Amino acid sequence: MKQWNDFKTNVWQKEVNVRDFILSNFHPYEGDESFLESPTESTTKLWDQVMDLTKKERENGGVLDMDTENVSTITSHDPGFLNKDLEKVVGVQTDEPFKRSLQPFGGIRMAKQSCESYGYELDPEVERIFTEYRKTHNQGVFDAYTDEMRLARKVGIITGLPDAYGRGRIIGDYRRVALYGVDFLIQEKKKDLAGTTPIMSEENIRLREELSEQIRALTELKTLAASYGFDISEPANHAAEAFQWLYFGYLAAIKEQNGAAMSLGRVSTFLDIYIERDLQNGILTEKEAQELVDHFIMKLRLVKFARTPDYNELFSGDPTWVTESIGGMAHDGRPLVTKNSFRFLHTLDNLGPAPEPNLTVLWSVRLPQHFKNYCAKMSIKTSSIQYENDDIMRPEYGDDYGIACCVSAMEIGKQMQFFGARANLAKALLYAINGGKDEKHKLQVGPEMTPITADVLDYDEVMQKFDQTMEWLAGLYINTLNVIHYMHDKYSYERIEMALHDTEIMRTMATGIAGLSVVADSLSAIKHAKVKVIRDENGLAVDFETEGDFPKYGNNDDRVDSIAVDLVKCFMTKLRKHQTYRQSIHTMSILTITSNVVYGKKTGNTPDGRRAGEPFAPGANPMHGRDSKGTLASLSSVAKLPYSYSMDGISNTFSIVPKALGKDEASRAQNLASILDGYAHKEGHHLNVNVFNRETLLDAMDHPEKYPQLTIRVSGYAVNFIKLTKEQQLDVINRTFHESM
Amino acid sequence: MKQWNDFKTNVWQKEVNVRDFILSNFHPYEGDESFLESPTESTTKLWDQVMDLTKKERENGGVLDMDTENVSTITSHDPGFLNKDLEKVVGVQTDEPFKRSLQPFGGIRMAKQSCESYGYELDPEVERIFTEYRKTHNQGVFDAYTDEMRLARKVGIITGLPDAYGRGRIIGDYRRVALYGVDFLIQEKKKDLAGTTPIMSEENIRLREELSEQIRALTELKTLAASYGFDISEPANHAAEAFQWLYFGYLAAIKEQNGAAMSLGRVSTFLDIYIERDLQNGILTEKEAQELVDHFIMKLRLVKFARTPDYNELFSGDPTWVTESIGGMAHDGRPLVTKNSFRFLHTLDNLGPAPEPNLTVLWSVRLPQHFKNYCAKMSIKTSSIQYENDDIMRPEYGDDYGIACCVSAMEIGKQMQFFGARANLAKALLYAINGGKDEKHKLQVGPEMTPITADVLDYDEVMQKFDQTMEWLAGLYINTLNVIHYMHDKYSYERIEMALHDTEIMRTMATGIAGLSVVADSLSAIKHAKVKVIRDENGLAVDFETEGDFPKYGNNDDRVDSIAVDLVKCFMTKLRKHQTYRQSIHTMSILTITSNVVYGKKTGNTPDGRRAGEPFAPGANPMHGRDSKGTLASLSSVAKLPYSYSMDGISNTFSIVPKALGKDEASRAQNLASILDGYAHKEGHHLNVNVFNRETLLDAMDHPEKYPQLTIRVSGYAVNFIKLTKEQQLDVINRTFHESM
Repeated sequence: MKQWNDFKTNVWQKEVNVRDFILSNFHPYEGDESFLESPTESTTKLWDQVMDLTKKERENGGVLDMDTENVSTITSHDPGFLNKDLEKVVGVQTDEPFKRSLQPFGGIRMAKQSCESYGYELDPEVERIFTEYRKTHNQGVFDAYTDEMRLARKVGIITGLPDAYGRGRIIGDYRRVALYGVDFLIQEKKKDLAGTTPIMSEENIRLREELSEQIRALTELKTLAASYGFDISEPANHAAEAFQWLYFGYLAAIKEQNGAAMSLGRVSTFLDIYIERDLQNGILTEKEAQELVDHFIMKLRLVKFARTPDYNELFSGDPTWVTESIGGMAHDGRPLVTKNSFRFLHTLDNLGPAPEPNLTVLWSVRLPQHFKNYCAKMSIKTSSIQYENDDIMRPEYGDDYGIACCVSAMEIGKQMQFFGARANLAKALLYAINGGKDEKHKLQVGPEMTPITADVLDYDEVMQKFDQTMEWLAGLYINTLNVIHYMHDKYSYERIEMALHDTEIMRTMATGIAGLSVVADSLSAIKHAKVKVIRDENGLAVDFETEGDFPKYGNNDDRVDSIAVDLVKCFMTKLRKHQTYRQSIHTMSILTITSNVVYGKKTGNTPDGRRAGEPFAPGANPMHGRDSKGTLASLSSVAKLPYSYSMDGISNTFSIVPKALGKDEASRAQNLASILDGYAHKEGHHLNVNVFNRETLLDAMDHPEKYPQLTIRVSGYAVNFIKLTKEQQLDVINRTFHESM
Repeated sequence: MKQWNDFKTNVWQKEVNVRDFILSNFHPYEGDESFLESPTESTTKLWDQVMDLTKKERENGGVLDMDTENVSTITSHDPGFLNKDLEKVVGVQTDEPFKRSLQPFGGIRMAKQSCESYGYELDPEVERIFTEYRKTHNQGVFDAYTDEMRLARKVGIITGLPDAYGRGRIIGDYRRVALYGVDFLIQEKKKDLAGTTPIMSEENIRLREELSEQIRALTELKTLAASYGFDISEPANHAAEAFQWLYFGYLAAIKEQNGAAMSLGRVSTFLDIYIERDLQNGILTEKEAQELVDHFIMKLRLVKFARTPDYNELFSGDPTWVTESIGGMAHDGRPLVTKNSFRFLHTLDNLGPAPEPNLTVLWSVRLPQHFKNYCAKMSIKTSSIQYENDDIMRPEYGDDYGIACCVSAMEIGKQMQFFGARANLAKALLYAINGGKDEKHKLQVGPEMTPITADVLDYDEVMQKFDQTMEWLAGLYINTLNVIHYMHDKYSYERIEMALHDTEIMRTMATGIAGLSVVADSLSAIKHAKVKVIRDENGLAVDFETEGDFPKYGNNDDRVDSIAVDLVKCFMTKLRKHQTYRQSIHTMSILTITSNVVYGKKTGNTPDGRRAGEPFAPGANPMHGRDSKGTLASLSSVAKLPYSYSMDGISNTFSIVPKALGKDEASRAQNLASILDGYAHKEGHHLNVNVFNRETLLDAMDHPEKYPQLTIRVSGYAVNFIKLTKEQQLDVINRTFHESM
């Protein structure tokens, strides 16, 4: 194909193989950031327009406009623009920026609630269609749920399940659109369809229908592009087209799906190849290259979905997890860092900080030092970057994986996950003590066991009952997820995203746990101190009194850290006993996003001293304020958690005050890079890095108008601080701010 | 329950068990027809209205009115009436009688074609909804079909597949609505839902969703009844309510589904129990009882669906297969014949003959003689009755089965089938000769085999290749059906019909064959005479020249009848090798309905001397005019076909001139009853009985206005003769009219 001129030929020309294209053609960059260009006039003008719309959106109560009539599909809307004359990358979700789309396939009640909670009214005809004629994912799930599942969901022992919103965490390989053009992709899918077995098992019938839907979606993708005046049947000719083609792929995905995390993948180094070719050919300048990146990133910052209050309670601050994975190493030892890796991070300067796209550096101790320093510098400046350990992920996922959502690694275009939110292990511990009764609802939820009646908790007795409780919970959890994902495939299949995957894919069933540190500290208290039970009039344990001190998770103390490690291994092992939908592979994450607050609300007093209703620590973090031995001790504790038992990610959110990192900008950057190297070396998986003083946050609470772009990393993503609820702001402020190494 | 007063108590009061209710409460009747009453004034008035509407419908080109906007669901329409003041049983499919409903769930293109072929325009908004938002069964099927399946369908080696219309052949146990009321049925389904395994395999998830849909449909059924002013939450209080409750159940089914065969089951003896109680209690007279039956039957005669030209070509004359099974024996030796069995047949007098409901007598040699004679008498008078052998079905299906469609026996409420239309074995024989190439389309359809090149066909060579061809065809056929039924369950699940089944049901995969007599005679010619092949310029066998005579199927000659028997066994055995959807049990029918004409059209010259394009014989019938040895010889040949290898039914359509049966009415009836006894005794399965002279049909062709109710039995159902196409009328006229026993 003529569009491939000047590229090194290899197997990627014979088959869909983006990795091979990248490895054959990319130019590693080991230099520093001095080449970077400031924003063009167009960029500044466009971004001002976005900031103005953002302000209006905030003033309007969080939503500027909503489509209440036109159901969002790939081809549902006329083209929309910020400023047609200035934009180098075009395309918005509806026909106007900041107008949220109507997505009822996941659930009509949710679509309606989303409208109503912002003062809009859903078109009654749409409601009728999606009630009488078109069943939704949500309705399907609730038709199949058992009473036990409904109850577990209600009391919050399993929470955040994607049964009322899109499951997300599926990364289309949007790069394929640019590299191959849509016609080639359709042709390959047709070959796959023709190549399935003629034996019509249900599995094969489903696969064939899915392939037909994928082909249909690809055809619609061409129609979408055509509506903006582009013919994407063939590969992109140059960098500007490559950005645009790729973005159309992503745009089709977000028009069709409102999954919690609509992640982007790993595109910067891929796109750098096009930029380098154009620079070589003299048809692009560095200024123009940065403009392309800035405009592309701006589009990603515009992604918005209509959400319900329930959803916002779980995932606060309007996140979309447009996660872009940057850096990492190739198997052959070359760093996958290009100038574009810098350009992407540089948007935090050119446009100012922002939560999206969710910039994720795949950290390796072998990354070029200049790049490490630049990342650290931008982290200190913006608190908008998260880091994940390429050195432990690469052996598992190869060198062309990306992060979906917060911490979920997956090989791009070859793997997807069935997102499974999380089980509340802190509540499970209370069930073990109370014979399966819920401490808040006073209801039998778990299987009836003899409750513990002793005045002082005995570690062995608690562990034996906790083990049984987890056994029950693991089974219920996997079976609940099986229902959800069966129905999601049935009623809300991700056609275009899966069209940008191989036909043969690996699926994971991604469970998660919440309350790890609460349970670890509680068990430590029971083991190492004396925990007395306080029971209500019905004999239900409702509070605990602890005599004596006990080691707490987060201080690099093996007496308690080993409890956390065992817990992770134990629950994962139990999950594996249960059969999963589509033979997906069991995985687990230790990640709560902002749901640590909701989980805490739903959970009674715990033996570690945490009061009923108080938030859990986020993800795998130690409990707020309990990691008192300094930065390194805290990080060491978390790094002990075994990634091989929690391959969907182990999230750690870390805040440090600037002065703790050093006296000046340069030494601070170097020190932060060293911390990251140290954490990677210890096999820690993920680190959210915040660098600021508590006072800044307190001031932002009082004067939000002064901080329109103040971004902080919470568990697995970044948010606009001023978009958080007061409760969540306080939770963030109450977390440990490391004042020393 | 007070509604059950005077009924004999038994297990039917503790569980849904209609059979037990019937066996505990029915009053066998061994008398004659002298008790029967003529129509009331209301009946006559209403029927005149129906005949008037029928005339208008005919004058209007076959359809009087169509709903093109309001998608038919259980609750979609306001109530409709013929004459509210006169009707004893109310309810029509839309809001007016003779207005056909809009049913797009099976396929939007079909719904559109149905409208257009009668000059109506489908509401474009409905088309948009069922294209963009609500996928249909038809679209699902074609998404999963392989190229080979599409081709097999196009050339007509597999035809009549329910991929473009509802599969039908599912009999809801509508009696349950009357006996238990809807609330009890909902409660039982809720128990079943609670009782499924907690392990969420895909099978279990699907079952749970289906149960939830069933419960929803039952709730809607109550709403439907309420719109007509009835509360059917509780059991029916008396006969009038029993008819009405039962009919509402059936009405909900035909509002929601347009399956080819929407059969009724076996209701007459059940309803007789209510009539008997009312008669005993002095709240009903015989005249009123007959009026209830007449009005009920009238409603069944009003059932209509919007069909496409393609469909009409297969199933001519607007049939709906409202099959009602009458008579049969109980396991305990009592005949299940009641006065109501007579009353149902008596509607043929009170309202005149009609194709619907498809009155089916379950014939046993042990039926009371009076009833046998009455059936025969009504057959002679109306040619509207079919007979099926209770003595061979009862051991397989118990004594509470019914016939779905034409010949498909199934235990009521405990069994359903996946309807599979039929494979064209005559064409398969030509493929065997031509190495898998289609003789009409000149295309490779079957697997490439070496064609036969000899000038004269060798029986062993032909059989060996025919065996291979059938091997391929059987696999392709079952896999095609698997696709269809997976998608039907997915996109057009029969909620209300299945709500009126047990939760645990037996499913059959009901295949069929066409061209049995053509193949039997062809093979007989090859074996017993000398068949020369005439080939075209490409070497494709396109015609045959036979020297010498050969035995023909239909003359009780084992030399050829055994070929037919072996063929049935052989194909059934091959079908069983292939795994079926939902582990359904393989069955087969020998039944073509009116598709014998279309099949013939699509099939080239055959070695038996049949010319290309000429119709096959219907069902298991001998070829027209070839059964020259008289009635009994013809019946004997068909009776040899083994029911155990063709448990979905073996259809035989039989025409005899009145004088061949005897001199007067009484002797004719007796002789016909004897023929039926003889056929049953020989284990013949099914017999359509037509008694008239060829001249009547010829006159009706020329003067249709003189014969508005002329009904004839074709393969498995009855039609208004004047509604057939000229081609089909000629086919019927050309069939054997037995002139002697």
